[in-house]
Amino acid sequence: MAHPAEPAPIDGCCQPILEPGLADDDAAVLARTFGALADPVRLRILSCIAAQPSGECCGCDLTAPLGRSQPTVSHHLKVLTEAGLVRGEKRGRWVWYSLVPERVELLRSLLDTSCCRVPGGPAASGHGSGRQ
Amino acid sequence: MAHPAEPAPIDGCCQPILEPGLADDDAAVLARTFGALADPVRLRILSCIAAQPSGECCGCDLTAPLGRSQPTVSHHLKVLTEAGLVRGEKRGRWVWYSLVPERVELLRSLLDTSCCRVPGGPAASGHGSGRQ
Repeated sequence: MAHPAEPAPIDGCCQPILEPGLADDDAAVLARTFGALADPVRLRILSCIAAQPSGECCGCDLTAPLGRSQPTVSHHLKVLTEAGLVRGEKRGRWVWYSLVPERVELLRSLLDTSCCRVPGGPAASGHGSGRQ
Repeated sequence: MAHPAEPAPIDGCCQPILEPGLADDDAAVLARTFGALADPVRLRILSCIAAQPSGECCGCDLTAPLGRSQPTVSHHLKVLTEAGLVRGEKRGRWVWYSLVPERVELLRSLLDTSCCRVPGGPAASGHGSGRQ
């Protein structure tokens, strides 16, 4: 199994998505990070790791519950690691993976809706007044 | 511009991703929904709509700030609408789009980390005790 990859540096770089003026570069970084969650096998890997009482799971133990080959599982673990959602620790031949809750919390914070305007809502003005 | 599509029915179907035992079907639905956020143009569309004081934006007004063609913008708006992250209202020739904050909040709730175990953390047991 490959050595774990380094996560992309989204910490502190990006504003909440639902605020105006998201920059091109930030959008590209965030899209890649959300892309890590856009695959059912990867979501099930997160759930499988979460199921471990010790909070960590050997990559070798994910093939059976997921019904996927080791190379496929390794690929998805690499994507999750690069997104910073899991971290791996090499011990001998295998890598042990655990969740990175603070990274998930960062994604949650980027989906903050407190600034959202909705037509007719308390934060909206000029409902139906035409194009801006 | 095409009539807005119906969102996928994730409401109430899915458990938080970071709890054990995420089902195959739920994982597939959730992966498609997170896939809507896995594109920089779509993230910038959300930010552009959020920038409107009225809380809504004509699809025709997104081409210039995004630097994309109308068919491209329409495609991405369709993906966001199918994910339930925006809703469209047809008025004459055009569709006006607004954010759906409650849908974004639903995605946030699925990323709940309160049940996360981390190695050595207060909710973990058996750190380093081997495979489960």
